Amino acid sequence: MAQENLSVVLHAKGDLRLEKCPVPEPGPTEVLLQMHSVGICGSDVHYWQHGRIGDFVLTKPMVLGHEASGRVVKVGSAVKHLKVGDRVAIEPGVPREMDEFFKSGRYNLSPTIFFCATPPDDGNLCRYYKHSANFCYKLPDNVTFEEGALIEPLSVGIHACRRAGVTLGSTVLICGAGPIGLVSLIVAKAMGASQVVVTDLSPERLKMAKELGADFQLTVKRGEEPQQLAKSVAELLGAQPHITIECTGAESSIQTAIYATRSGGVVVLVGLGSEMATVPLVNAAVREVDIRGVFRYCNTWPMAIAMLSSGKVNVKPLVTHRFPLEQAVQAFETTRQGVGIKVMLKCDRNDQNP
Amino acid sequence: MAQENLSVVLHAKGDLRLEKCPVPEPGPTEVLLQMHSVGICGSDVHYWQHGRIGDFVLTKPMVLGHEASGRVVKVGSAVKHLKVGDRVAIEPGVPREMDEFFKSGRYNLSPTIFFCATPPDDGNLCRYYKHSANFCYKLPDNVTFEEGALIEPLSVGIHACRRAGVTLGSTVLICGAGPIGLVSLIVAKAMGASQVVVTDLSPERLKMAKELGADFQLTVKRGEEPQQLAKSVAELLGAQPHITIECTGAESSIQTAIYATRSGGVVVLVGLGSEMATVPLVNAAVREVDIRGVFRYCNTWPMAIAMLSSGKVNVKPLVTHRFPLEQAVQAFETTRQGVGIKVMLKCDRNDQNP
Amino acid sequence: MAQENLSVVLHAKGDLRLEKCPVPEPGPTEVLLQMHSVGICGSDVHYWQHGRIGDFVLTKPMVLGHEASGRVVKVGSAVKHLKVGDRVAIEPGVPREMDEFFKSGRYNLSPTIFFCATPPDDGNLCRYYKHSANFCYKLPDNVTFEEGALIEPLSVGIHACRRAGVTLGSTVLICGAGPIGLVSLIVAKAMGASQVVVTDLSPERLKMAKELGADFQLTVKRGEEPQQLAKSVAELLGAQPHITIECTGAESSIQTAIYATRSGGVVVLVGLGSEMATVPLVNAAVREVDIRGVFRYCNTWPMAIAMLSSGKVNVKPLVTHRFPLEQAVQAFETTRQGVGIKVMLKCDRNDQNP
Amino acid sequence: MAQENLSVVLHAKGDLRLEKCPVPEPGPTEVLLQMHSVGICGSDVHYWQHGRIGDFVLTKPMVLGHEASGRVVKVGSAVKHLKVGDRVAIEPGVPREMDEFFKSGRYNLSPTIFFCATPPDDGNLCRYYKHSANFCYKLPDNVTFEEGALIEPLSVGIHACRRAGVTLGSTVLICGAGPIGLVSLIVAKAMGASQVVVTDLSPERLKMAKELGADFQLTVKRGEEPQQLAKSVAELLGAQPHITIECTGAESSIQTAIYATRSGGVVVLVGLGSEMATVPLVNAAVREVDIRGVFRYCNTWPMAIAMLSSGKVNVKPLVTHRFPLEQAVQAFETTRQGVGIKVMLKCDRNDQNP
Repeated sequence: MAQENLSVVLHAKGDLRLEKCPVPEPGPTEVLLQMHSVGICGSDVHYWQHGRIGDFVLTKPMVLGHEASGRVVKVGSAVKHLKVGDRVAIEPGVPREMDEFFKSGRYNLSPTIFFCATPPDDGNLCRYYKHSANFCYKLPDNVTFEEGALIEPLSVGIHACRRAGVTLGSTVLICGAGPIGLVSLIVAKAMGASQVVVTDLSPERLKMAKELGADFQLTVKRGEEPQQLAKSVAELLGAQPHITIECTGAESSIQTAIYATRSGGVVVLVGLGSEMATVPLVNAAVREVDIRGVFRYCNTWPMAIAMLSSGKVNVKPLVTHRFPLEQAVQAFETTRQGVGIKVMLKCDRNDQNP
Repeated sequence: MAQENLSVVLHAKGDLRLEKCPVPEPGPTEVLLQMHSVGICGSDVHYWQHGRIGDFVLTKPMVLGHEASGRVVKVGSAVKHLKVGDRVAIEPGVPREMDEFFKSGRYNLSPTIFFCATPPDDGNLCRYYKHSANFCYKLPDNVTFEEGALIEPLSVGIHACRRAGVTLGSTVLICGAGPIGLVSLIVAKAMGASQVVVTDLSPERLKMAKELGADFQLTVKRGEEPQQLAKSVAELLGAQPHITIECTGAESSIQTAIYATRSGGVVVLVGLGSEMATVPLVNAAVREVDIRGVFRYCNTWPMAIAMLSSGKVNVKPLVTHRFPLEQAVQAFETTRQGVGIKVMLKCDRNDQNP
Repeated sequence: MAQENLSVVLHAKGDLRLEKCPVPEPGPTEVLLQMHSVGICGSDVHYWQHGRIGDFVLTKPMVLGHEASGRVVKVGSAVKHLKVGDRVAIEPGVPREMDEFFKSGRYNLSPTIFFCATPPDDGNLCRYYKHSANFCYKLPDNVTFEEGALIEPLSVGIHACRRAGVTLGSTVLICGAGPIGLVSLIVAKAMGASQVVVTDLSPERLKMAKELGADFQLTVKRGEEPQQLAKSVAELLGAQPHITIECTGAESSIQTAIYATRSGGVVVLVGLGSEMATVPLVNAAVREVDIRGVFRYCNTWPMAIAMLSSGKVNVKPLVTHRFPLEQAVQAFETTRQGVGIKVMLKCDRNDQNP
Repeated sequence: MAQENLSVVLHAKGDLRLEKCPVPEPGPTEVLLQMHSVGICGSDVHYWQHGRIGDFVLTKPMVLGHEASGRVVKVGSAVKHLKVGDRVAIEPGVPREMDEFFKSGRYNLSPTIFFCATPPDDGNLCRYYKHSANFCYKLPDNVTFEEGALIEPLSVGIHACRRAGVTLGSTVLICGAGPIGLVSLIVAKAMGASQVVVTDLSPERLKMAKELGADFQLTVKRGEEPQQLAKSVAELLGAQPHITIECTGAESSIQTAIYATRSGGVVVLVGLGSEMATVPLVNAAVREVDIRGVFRYCNTWPMAIAMLSSGKVNVKPLVTHRFPLEQAVQAFETTRQGVGIKVMLKCDRNDQNP
């Protein structure tokens, strides 16, 4: 394959480059993909700006990108379920060891998992990328490449709502109207939530929440008391929400999440803030409000594809910007500025459609 | 209260009478209701035609009706959460003893439960009816009395889908497009099912299933092989369904349900047929297809009201016929003939609106 | 009943009195009990010393005691399952309203629940006490009154282990070897835990843990680093424990609990400390270590009686001191000094046996 | 490795031969094992006698045996967690494809799974056998090879009790006191069951149940009415059991299981009988008695090893006969005659110890 493989490579904190890499050769259980659409995630920008996220530190150049879809152009010898030409969505986490987590269906917790664009593992913001065929999922004809790429953030929402136990008639508070808050909103409604309140500092972002189906929006003021905010949520709903999905990571917002949630309910922590947080743990404990985190996701692609294909969820409005791969730096800058919701990079020169 | 209390009383198999009963006096924890809308259930007709259902045998005159809503006209001395004028939906099952089932949240299984229109307990197809205030639920202004009455059949669908574990992306087979099959369809979609197949002998009933959101309809021919039918279902969906909700009670349909369901899935038995059934139990067992029954429901009214009020589920199309209470016999005859879906009796002379 | 009813009444912080109260008259759904054995709980002592626990403030004299058993001496007119002479264990929490929590089997979360010796509700440290018959459980002949009284603390252990999901082969860390840590240990072993580590500041208390079946004991030094302690636990077990049951309420211990628990595991908070706690929430979240509180218990008495009667759990060694009711103040002083494990008050002058 | 590899090969129905096979060469992710102890399972005998079990038909010679342990003698190049000399227990089912079942932690349901001694996959009743290293589990020093081999039948009991939801205070009926009934008994007690009733036609087998901890034994007479038998069980326990584990596969016993189980409880089908069974499905459905099958097991070896090593379960009494591998035919004949409980074949000429 005498192709160039233009890739978005992070060399060090602040040093993002577009460069040509060799086209990889898929192993027996892998497929080679011609990338089509890759969304930029907050974590990509964070690595670019800080060179690290928590304990994950960039120590050598790494290709960014993990919200991705593409077309199969080469198939490993042992691969049976995919063929050249198939359009696929890519699950970026691939367990490397058959450990207790993998065997019991929670492979996202496997400490040795491969994960696109988490140091030192390369991502797929490039022209050609190889991936485990078992973690590439064929897209039906009525699901676009961009929808395929959006399955990654959607999966965070699915995993969060599943861990929260959202079901018919659930009332849900979602703290934060960024991309993850918004996909959580979409999923919560699709799982049967009767009422969803979304909070954010920005009325602009709340407008989008409203368009995507939020029943109530609440603009938070900096410095507002968590207990007061919790009260406002209960007033909007007529009762405390069964479930709170915290997507900001801010300490005050985690406090609000606990105070706001109904006894016997669940707070899911999706947003990540500082390592230590001061929270009203006794309040949560004596009301049996469970606090559950999410680490990425597992077993979400098939159900996400089913929902997209059936038209039950609509993620298309999330894409607010598109750039050709060649303009990746500009795309990253746009994301960094927090303009719009999701910036999509178009990796296929011959097909820049959604 | 110098009111007449016209009531639909079943005196014996085949002997249905409209007669005037005394207006009851509510006890301290009860409310007196002026009935508004009461749906006729297949079980009401069955008692009328056969004088019994299984071990429940009519031995003395019994008021029929248990799908009901009304308006509070008198409030027991200990009742705090309701007041005169409140519009309420009635949960017909009221546990009498605080036994292990009640204490653990499965009060529907309590062997001594009171249940409207199950011998010897009177139902509420009448002008005035008293009920435990704890099992009367205030309707929001945007939920009609008829929607309130339909919460009863809807609850069967909720309980079935909940026992089945319907969630985001579930694929579901529903056997039977009668009222219960249809409410199960509505609920399954609201809980996130991506694709629902509904089967029935009658193409007419399947038309309604389609209108209510079924993704596929399959007309069953009498004598069709269960395994063949199961295959057709898998072909429609592209894979076996995760869940089957069996609403017919027919032995061959239960067999189909087992063959059709994916390994690791669930068959919920809602329809009841003959006491003994011959089924492919080994097929279910070695594929870990769980077989779960439902007995009525518990803890469904609040979530049903939340869903109706939020507009997430629409049960209004289910009501195909309305009769004033005075024409109850004609209404029963209509139900017996299987015309339409749900026949509603209007008990309030001054308000026959939905 | 011309009986005196000697009672242990807390009049105000520090003001504990033994005084004669009237013998109460049971209502239709109640039974009158001649009290036999009542254990002193840390919370009883706390009310005595501080006049409050959190938001529960003593504002009028209150009888203490809630770990209790006695004999039925009078039966309310509507009570069917108990008769005079029955020996019973008392569940101290009795829901007052049939709210959503009660209906769904989590009545311990009902905000209006009656609870013995939680202001303003009187406890049962007295000669004669009336209680809801539905929350009195008949003891089999082979279960002693003291075992019956110990069902209350045992229930905390049951509820904690149940919320933790202890099952066959679970490895468990229990922080704190006080009465609650010890009952959690007993229950965890009975539910199939393969290895249990117990930690405490006091080697003395750990000795009792060892006698009750702990596989490992770890003496904690004040000021020891939580992460270091977590490491020691993993070294003892050969891997991180699946579950941690935190029974101290100390902030550093909660931190240890989070660090120590295996990814995908559970921390149960039983001990209560200060309202706000600073904890490594990100560490818990990204490893999907769930944090769950317990508030008392529900639905534990029947299973506790089953376990005691079958000999599967042995709580008898927990009773280290006994005093006749007349010496209640001395008994409270003994408990306050932290001598031994469980102090039992003997309320029946004619039967001071276990 | 110039070793002979004596193997027990089934050539056709009734044609069992001891023959020398080549010593296999482990692949990169495999280990070669010198077999030590292999138990004979009823299914081994069934293949020998009938040449098939259900849809699994012997079409070419197959090595029997799947309850096994051995010592690592060669390690594949990619294997990290095992080394030569390690003593291991073998999980006989190894998923071949990373399908939805495997990814979600239920790999036993994967339709393409490899399974020892299920046609066409060879078992391990031989001197040397290679196996996926990921499904070989290192035995602690205090667990014998025979205990290691017994983890296979023990796993059936674990999976059955886990699917049944056995927990603290559960009362359990076990139908059948064969090896699987007995391991279910052992596991149920270890998981906290308070009372276990075991039934069987043979008083002899019930004696062993008693020795292993059964609280009650009930000798069943051929032709006894299922409903009558169910009543006897309730009388023994004082109430219906929460859970029934059916290990016979007999239709009448499945009927008994349903009638006997408490409302809201679970029947687990472990024994397999004829494809179609006539059962009181309505009785199960209206009492919400769930019917769940088990197919082998998954994720049981680590917990089984933990339980054996901690001494919480004792399976040693199950081994009643031992034969050197050379006497395999005699060993099979002994098993066929139903003498004793578990017949163990000793494959290592130099070490015939337990």
